[in-house]
Amino acid sequence: MKLKLKNVFLAYFLVSIAGLLYVLASHVTQKDLRISQLQAELRRPPPAPAQPPEPEALPTIYVVTPTYARLVQKAELVRLSQTLSLVPRLHWLLVEDAEGPTPLVSGLLAVSGLLFTHLVVLMPKAQQLRDGKPGWVHPRGVKRRNKALDWLWGRGGAVGGEKDPPPPGTQGVVYLADSDNTYSQELFEEMRWTYGVSVWPVGLVGGLRFEGPQVQDGWVVGFHKVWEPNRPFPVDMAGFAVALPLLLAKPNAQFDSTAPRSHLESSLLSHLVDPKDLEPQAANCTRVLMSLTPTEKPKMKQEEQLQRQGRGSDPAIEV
Amino acid sequence: MKLKLKNVFLAYFLVSIAGLLYVLASHVTQKDLRISQLQAELRRPPPAPAQPPEPEALPTIYVVTPTYARLVQKAELVRLSQTLSLVPRLHWLLVEDAEGPTPLVSGLLAVSGLLFTHLVVLMPKAQQLRDGKPGWVHPRGVKRRNKALDWLWGRGGAVGGEKDPPPPGTQGVVYLADSDNTYSQELFEEMRWTYGVSVWPVGLVGGLRFEGPQVQDGWVVGFHKVWEPNRPFPVDMAGFAVALPLLLAKPNAQFDSTAPRSHLESSLLSHLVDPKDLEPQAANCTRVLMSLTPTEKPKMKQEEQLQRQGRGSDPAIEV
Repeated sequence: MKLKLKNVFLAYFLVSIAGLLYVLASHVTQKDLRISQLQAELRRPPPAPAQPPEPEALPTIYVVTPTYARLVQKAELVRLSQTLSLVPRLHWLLVEDAEGPTPLVSGLLAVSGLLFTHLVVLMPKAQQLRDGKPGWVHPRGVKRRNKALDWLWGRGGAVGGEKDPPPPGTQGVVYLADSDNTYSQELFEEMRWTYGVSVWPVGLVGGLRFEGPQVQDGWVVGFHKVWEPNRPFPVDMAGFAVALPLLLAKPNAQFDSTAPRSHLESSLLSHLVDPKDLEPQAANCTRVLMSLTPTEKPKMKQEEQLQRQGRGSDPAIEV
Repeated sequence: MKLKLKNVFLAYFLVSIAGLLYVLASHVTQKDLRISQLQAELRRPPPAPAQPPEPEALPTIYVVTPTYARLVQKAELVRLSQTLSLVPRLHWLLVEDAEGPTPLVSGLLAVSGLLFTHLVVLMPKAQQLRDGKPGWVHPRGVKRRNKALDWLWGRGGAVGGEKDPPPPGTQGVVYLADSDNTYSQELFEEMRWTYGVSVWPVGLVGGLRFEGPQVQDGWVVGFHKVWEPNRPFPVDMAGFAVALPLLLAKPNAQFDSTAPRSHLESSLLSHLVDPKDLEPQAANCTRVLMSLTPTEKPKMKQEEQLQRQGRGSDPAIEV
């Protein structure tokens, strides 16, 4: 009887120890599992910094800039490229007035960090001096701007950067941004979601503090302007943006090189939209988010003097 | 005897079980420790994206910009703020010619995203029109630039932004950057590691493609220039940068408002450095990384016409 009791005690003891061991072992296994979970979490790359909204989902802004060789060419393009580099989902279409891509422009694009397409088209000499009239009689940059539209339509012509045009169905907007204007970053977000043609005020143009659409109940009902009041679309080149799908649907919409200078914008827009359907941006056109800021032409009197003496500034140094 | 053997067996068994339990328990404790270590690692903020070298270790660039109210004021400051926002470890000292901080400049600084100090100093009316001579006879912006130097020396005067001057021992460099020039990003990295006074070429100045130091074996031996050749330091305001410790060591180094305009830079630099000790940057002064690009004064003929009729551009809209 004494021995029997001990056996019962021993059996009970062994069973409870086995149970305890089982619980402990499974506890250790759970902890091992938790450790490997935590290690996996640590190995996972950190989440990208928050960029609301996700840039991949944004329509692309195609910025068209015509350029030509002159003393302030590089300075203006450097400054514009800095502005554009602050804007997500942007594709710069830079169109040179030249026979081929120049080292100055190719080099600048290469270090810009921007997604770009480099295009080139030469303005015929005859057109430059047409009729012996001064340059401003005929609009400038028409061939270059049309060259960029041609590329968007898939008619090729790229000499550098991204050569393929936007694939069908690309959501985007096209903006004609000359290199001598000043653009706030906010402007680009105003134009990004354009369904037809967006418009906004332009500062320091037409002899006024600003020109711009007049808006009532969200519709454009007129324009604040004085200069050339009979323009069908009294907007500056940098005062509107066109939805890419709308532009691609109108393959005959081009700038007309025979249009009087102040009617150049209208020569494109009349293919695309009725003035009453313009989409007012920039808080119903009550904010000026860009201005015309042409650069003074540099004086080169001393340079010419030195060059006559064969001591001009080193031409190998790019300015 | 039989019972004794069992007692021995039982004692041995209990001791070994106790040992096993101890080992298991300490194992669990170790795993708990590992789990809390891993959880702590996960809670730690992710490392900042690689920016070689570590920005905290970079000397700060103090950029001094004088500004005054005029039509292109906002446009120029917007454009410059965009350039500066691309440069790490930069502190903008913006000095207004005004009685107090204006809403235009305060608002622009607030949304710039830059580290800044807002300073204000009014040019006395008498000085503006002194001797009835035109503005260019006397140098402009002297009081404003000296106001920024005063702040660096701990003489206060900030009306917005960071109010405390750099703490003693701050590594940095001071650059006088007017709002109408064009600066490449690279320029700021050239000037960042300045031990005394750095210099480089300046584009589109003095009637030349560029003016700049002539360098032999790493030393400045002369200057490429024509205009005012007798300046002790024939460099533009934006053609040099001064190490902060050097400037702080010379509390009498200021711009001299009585200096002829072309000698303004020399009036500061002659306190700080011997011309032969200037530090040439920008690949031994063979690259032009900044240019003078003054903005044309906007014509306001139509605005004046409308204002006479009481129909001027809405003054509540900031341009």
